[in-house]
Amino acid sequence: MTSVNQIDLLERVRQLEEENARLQVLLHIAQSLQEELELDKLLLKMMEEVAHILHADRCTVFLLDEEKNELWSIVAMGLKKGQQIRFPANKGIAGYVAQTGEVLNIPDAYKDPRFNPEIDKKTGYRTRCMLTMPLRNKMHDIIGVFQVLNKKDGPFTREDEELLDAISQIAATAIENAQLYEDQVKSFNSFIETLSTTLDARDYITAGHSRRVTLYTLALSDALGLDEDTREELRYAALLHDIGKLGIPESVLFKAGKLTDEEYALIKSHPQITREILNKIYFHKKLRNVPEIAATHHERVDGKGYPDGLKNGEIPFGGRMLCLADVFDALTSRRQYRDREPLEKVWQLIEKDSGTAFDPKCVEAFKMIPAGRIIEIMEQDRAQDLIEEEIEKLYAVPLEKILEWKTNGASNLSPEDRELLELFDKYYERRY
Amino acid sequence: MTSVNQIDLLERVRQLEEENARLQVLLHIAQSLQEELELDKLLLKMMEEVAHILHADRCTVFLLDEEKNELWSIVAMGLKKGQQIRFPANKGIAGYVAQTGEVLNIPDAYKDPRFNPEIDKKTGYRTRCMLTMPLRNKMHDIIGVFQVLNKKDGPFTREDEELLDAISQIAATAIENAQLYEDQVKSFNSFIETLSTTLDARDYITAGHSRRVTLYTLALSDALGLDEDTREELRYAALLHDIGKLGIPESVLFKAGKLTDEEYALIKSHPQITREILNKIYFHKKLRNVPEIAATHHERVDGKGYPDGLKNGEIPFGGRMLCLADVFDALTSRRQYRDREPLEKVWQLIEKDSGTAFDPKCVEAFKMIPAGRIIEIMEQDRAQDLIEEEIEKLYAVPLEKILEWKTNGASNLSPEDRELLELFDKYYERRY
Repeated sequence: MTSVNQIDLLERVRQLEEENARLQVLLHIAQSLQEELELDKLLLKMMEEVAHILHADRCTVFLLDEEKNELWSIVAMGLKKGQQIRFPANKGIAGYVAQTGEVLNIPDAYKDPRFNPEIDKKTGYRTRCMLTMPLRNKMHDIIGVFQVLNKKDGPFTREDEELLDAISQIAATAIENAQLYEDQVKSFNSFIETLSTTLDARDYITAGHSRRVTLYTLALSDALGLDEDTREELRYAALLHDIGKLGIPESVLFKAGKLTDEEYALIKSHPQITREILNKIYFHKKLRNVPEIAATHHERVDGKGYPDGLKNGEIPFGGRMLCLADVFDALTSRRQYRDREPLEKVWQLIEKDSGTAFDPKCVEAFKMIPAGRIIEIMEQDRAQDLIEEEIEKLYAVPLEKILEWKTNGASNLSPEDRELLELFDKYYERRY
Repeated sequence: MTSVNQIDLLERVRQLEEENARLQVLLHIAQSLQEELELDKLLLKMMEEVAHILHADRCTVFLLDEEKNELWSIVAMGLKKGQQIRFPANKGIAGYVAQTGEVLNIPDAYKDPRFNPEIDKKTGYRTRCMLTMPLRNKMHDIIGVFQVLNKKDGPFTREDEELLDAISQIAATAIENAQLYEDQVKSFNSFIETLSTTLDARDYITAGHSRRVTLYTLALSDALGLDEDTREELRYAALLHDIGKLGIPESVLFKAGKLTDEEYALIKSHPQITREILNKIYFHKKLRNVPEIAATHHERVDGKGYPDGLKNGEIPFGGRMLCLADVFDALTSRRQYRDREPLEKVWQLIEKDSGTAFDPKCVEAFKMIPAGRIIEIMEQDRAQDLIEEEIEKLYAVPLEKILEWKTNGASNLSPEDRELLELFDKYYERRY
């Protein structure tokens, strides 16, 4: 009797330990997934965790894009941002599972007629066993598919299926949260971008201006090696720097002739109006400086700018960056009756004002921006006409080199350098 | 030997079962909290779950508001939205824990000098034992405090402390996610509201217009009993219905004299420009109809409206609601050289157009809006001067009654009704 009892107890201990391990895994993954609200990062983390937990070689999460009726997934490419792959929502094993809601545990993929060996062929990977399971949300709608490949020690078991099923419930909620968050970020961004473009479009002189200033500012922030949070802050400040112009009558703002003193004073009030408008908007802690950066884009380091006549360090660094990007765009924009000023002349004007209007650190860093990137920004209204390979070549040359070549004269250049300079001029002068 | 072994095994089973129960609780709460991304609802759920898990009478989550250096909490009041209580971040037991990061397990609150019996006095509640623990995020910063009151079977144990500690880690992440989401929603909302107000403020005739139209539309949607998602959609559409005016030169838009045919045609293009602008904005699935609703606010049910001459059911119902709210605000707005039109006259004009310009369902429902609410919206630029008790009285009367009384003449009214009518007129005619 005692020994039977003991065997029962041992069995009970074994069961409890197993259940314990299972619960620990689920709790771990729930906490781990909960920590990531950005969709791309969440998916990558999810795939890594699940492959590890199921002792599998790979795991992919495919999400259902209802509007396009496609499944898509993110691929870690050693890049900062993941790349997407997409295919029709009824294709392959994943498509089958997304359509039917069945769980497929396939011990040998090549023996299953639904398996599409195309991807293996392309990638050189060899799929053996696969476990594919629908991802369902709270409402039991299928929102995607989990696909786990090549378990290290043989085919997937019934226990693996149960574990993955429990994980997929947790994963589905985490994905839906991340999607809700992303939707909200997307709405905010698209609204600001649309508004910024619409405001600029009121006048042909400013059409595309805020967008270009934003891109120059971001290029400058890359040259300066600024971090991601600062980039975001600069992006919003740049897109919105001229929003204060909404407070100035168009009859003054777009006046063709000479402005009276009163009118000029009115125009000069726009950064202050920008500040007032942006101060009414709720910005997240990380974006707290957006109003000040945007409001100081006409300040000068020598204190002779407006609206507040701030000096050097009194001007937020972002405001000093914006100031340069703003002037650079103004000087290189095409107007109705004239072409772009020659780059040498533009840069002379900027260097002359380095240390008075502009922070020299910004001027120096601006010269480090790849010439290809400058052209892409400058010519973005004709983006479709740029020849990719040519722009790529120009990406290898910083703006500084172009300026140097122009100063030294083309005759002293190597054939390669001359070719690059001609390429730059072709786009700069719009001969394409 | 055997029996000792058996005792060990029994003890092992007991431990494992206990650990299992603990893990199950944690997994349950992780999944449950993960499901709620709205901060208010999340906090209420969290407090309920934790009180239940710890067999306690109550649980409160206090969050730290760093900017104001306050702790705040939400109180379920049987209301849809929770109410907040706030106090300085160093006050009471919760404040002590928020400052020091200590865990306080107090068996008898009234014997602890840090306990503030004020709240008990006010509420009639009797605090006995309390367990108070800091909520820390991933970076180990204190973001708030968990406070659990009155365990049903005696004081809180060491095990309760450990369990609450594990829960608080999960809770902190859930709270931070909800805060991130809420921040994003707040940013989007404040941006749209600020923009809408700024656009209207360009001209004294339209100052405050979009905001009032939004409030009338929401009042109308309450009268019609529409759901929360539809309300949200209507809110955005109403705030943005005139954004297309950005595409029309101010010289035409604000022209004082008579418009030429071309100018009039230009003005009439503004709902189409609204559509084009809003179509560029990414709206969440639930808000998908915002552009169409906003773009149809000048359509008429008889098909004689613009820009598309849509008829009856071709016009989204939201567009028909906006149309009425828009005209009602125009007719009841004060202009520089004249007072508000008498309400009888305003309503005659609207009834005359019911079935041609307006959907009769909207006209009928509009009359059900409480008169107090109408006054609040109409007079919102003087909100601080409204006398609360008077407005409350007017909340008991639908607009329909006021119209009826005005038609029948004041002499036939009971003294109470006459008083209400006079109250309404006082605000309507701005004699206050």
